[in-house]
Amino acid sequence: MLRHVSTYGPCSRSAVAVATGLNKTTVTSLVSELQARGLVKETGPQHAGSVGRPSVALVLDGSRVGALGVEVNVDYIAAIASDLAGRVLIDRRIGFDAMGSGPERSLDELVHVIEKTVADLDRLGIALAGITVAIPGLIDTTTGTVVVAPNLGWRGVAVADRLSQADIRGDIPVTVDNDANLAALAEYTSGVAAGTSDLVYLTGEVGVGGGVIAGGRLLGGADGFAGEVGHVMVDPSGERCRCGRIGCWETKVGLAALVRMATPDRAYGTGPQVVRDPEERLAEIEQRRAEGDPRVDAAAVEVGRWLGIGAAMLVNLFNPRVIVLGGYFARLADRLIPAAEQELARLGMSGAVERCRFAASDLGFGAASRGAAGVVVERAHSDPTSITIRTSPAIGVIEGTTMARLPHSP
Amino acid sequence: MLRHVSTYGPCSRSAVAVATGLNKTTVTSLVSELQARGLVKETGPQHAGSVGRPSVALVLDGSRVGALGVEVNVDYIAAIASDLAGRVLIDRRIGFDAMGSGPERSLDELVHVIEKTVADLDRLGIALAGITVAIPGLIDTTTGTVVVAPNLGWRGVAVADRLSQADIRGDIPVTVDNDANLAALAEYTSGVAAGTSDLVYLTGEVGVGGGVIAGGRLLGGADGFAGEVGHVMVDPSGERCRCGRIGCWETKVGLAALVRMATPDRAYGTGPQVVRDPEERLAEIEQRRAEGDPRVDAAAVEVGRWLGIGAAMLVNLFNPRVIVLGGYFARLADRLIPAAEQELARLGMSGAVERCRFAASDLGFGAASRGAAGVVVERAHSDPTSITIRTSPAIGVIEGTTMARLPHSP
Repeated sequence: MLRHVSTYGPCSRSAVAVATGLNKTTVTSLVSELQARGLVKETGPQHAGSVGRPSVALVLDGSRVGALGVEVNVDYIAAIASDLAGRVLIDRRIGFDAMGSGPERSLDELVHVIEKTVADLDRLGIALAGITVAIPGLIDTTTGTVVVAPNLGWRGVAVADRLSQADIRGDIPVTVDNDANLAALAEYTSGVAAGTSDLVYLTGEVGVGGGVIAGGRLLGGADGFAGEVGHVMVDPSGERCRCGRIGCWETKVGLAALVRMATPDRAYGTGPQVVRDPEERLAEIEQRRAEGDPRVDAAAVEVGRWLGIGAAMLVNLFNPRVIVLGGYFARLADRLIPAAEQELARLGMSGAVERCRFAASDLGFGAASRGAAGVVVERAHSDPTSITIRTSPAIGVIEGTTMARLPHSP
Repeated sequence: MLRHVSTYGPCSRSAVAVATGLNKTTVTSLVSELQARGLVKETGPQHAGSVGRPSVALVLDGSRVGALGVEVNVDYIAAIASDLAGRVLIDRRIGFDAMGSGPERSLDELVHVIEKTVADLDRLGIALAGITVAIPGLIDTTTGTVVVAPNLGWRGVAVADRLSQADIRGDIPVTVDNDANLAALAEYTSGVAAGTSDLVYLTGEVGVGGGVIAGGRLLGGADGFAGEVGHVMVDPSGERCRCGRIGCWETKVGLAALVRMATPDRAYGTGPQVVRDPEERLAEIEQRRAEGDPRVDAAAVEVGRWLGIGAAMLVNLFNPRVIVLGGYFARLADRLIPAAEQELARLGMSGAVERCRFAASDLGFGAASRGAAGVVVERAHSDPTSITIRTSPAIGVIEGTTMARLPHSP
């Protein structure tokens, strides 16, 4: 019923009854429930054609119920809160050395970020329907445990358990999922390739993950681990990866590889470790380029070349229409894509390769947390009974843009 | 209705009416149609519990209607005909140099094989419901055209058109599909990993193709081209492939690579080309090994090693439970799998890799044509009206085994 109102509203109770096949008494009763949960509201009378008496119309409300998506990545923690109508209320990211801090301290910081965001939502009069956490690694989604996250150095970390122990309004459901999968869902829902049934999303972070939409559905594999592109060996005579293996794709195209080639004096893991948001890293690289440092362009071309080599593999295996470049890839897309396209055309199977294009994401480093919030919204629509009833009215929003096409905030 | 009879039969017309929600008049009328098409038949009266009069029961017939799957590969053409109940009636394979013959002569030979098989079915009193052709390449399934088949050297070959021009009972529907995809369907339906929702099938031919079952469905990608594993670059400093690229996986694990390493004097494409069924190639390799030629074991270990390297890529990207080794891989599985497992464990993502195993197919080189026949059976069950009405009775079968678990014929 909620879906019908969401898709076709405003519409009358009678119209909902006809469309859903429920009888009018049931619809009236359900509407009361949904109104109490702040999910639908009434608008002024609507004239149903030229005959019959005007009826009160229902529209999706959702402005009093919020969804929170958070992401822990190598060098930042991001949080996006939206209401159930999809309006982004809060969008924040802090530089944080999750790689160097270990799981305990990282989870403490995560809890801190969540508590701060929940308090902000509280001030806005928004009840939280759920939290989804994005992590760059393999996730056991049934228990909310990180099986392994090579770039964070995590193994067997029970994220959902830790959050349920924290005092974040104990009854808010928490789920955990892979960052790239969540970002792929965000792209499929509202990104540059929205609605493309077959697409691959690539995170351009220190680590490189992949999320695959196949036939309009997220490709999970047997355990939800599908799309782990970063540690596929692409060069048997390549360098050693952070994961211990040789020649992983990530060693060729990850943000650390770019930084190492473009600004060797500032490489990850060398010299005193200063943790910075990846945006700051990119700003520095742009600055170097403006100063005429030839290493920057050479590095971008080399990364682009390997991006194309890996993309050819993805095209041969998944036959997507679009490869969406996320994270830092999107920021350097104008230099990466030409080099990547050349390799893709050379190495990809003809037939599939001509019909596939690269697209730079416009969701920035917030794609995963946005997808995470989207999962909560989707779940709330599927199961409105999971939402706690609250009575305080919405009093305002921090940002008023909708989730679709929101540019990332700096 | 046909599905219900197939799954729950024998059952009465009344039981079918109750289960399908159709009224009894409709069921009676549909049963007459299906009887006329040779798809259901009556058995003796069945007692429906202890009360009521006994009713005549319906069972799936299908013994008078056939499905034909044919495969053109580099060095053979294979044909499998079954009835709609899944019993294999004809299973043949001939050595044929499709690679050297070009598309015209190959299609002539294909037509010849089909005509011969159709004539045999005719003698058995079997009407053909359809033909599906398996080709190792990218297929435009809507037009039945081979977009590109690198190992056959085909590009833009209109297979379905050619067959509809031939005089093979003009009204039999013909479809064309990728060999590995069809084989994956056969494995999912009735092979060693039957029912495994996430599996990857690998053809072990001169070319190496992949078919992916993801979440219980064939992974097609945007154009049905997904799973093209053979031409993924795995070694930038490797050898030139038949496709023109460098370091394709196929150059490491294809049958030609094994033959080149194990019996260099008999390699594909060197010296006078003698076309032989791959079984003969394998028999020779076995013979050499029995004679103590150390190159054979060394070759198998090297192929196994690269098989594991590619399998790690597949595990990271598709997260399957089983990788089914088809074609020649299955024949040498005892030597290939240990070497492959070692590399898979070393290179695959922990979490996914421990839960994935190799399994040797028992469908042999007939997997693709078996899957092709299965597609026809499935379509006939979904749309019985597509079947031409015939009246001649079935008079016998050439082979009486069922499709499930039929060992490949030598």
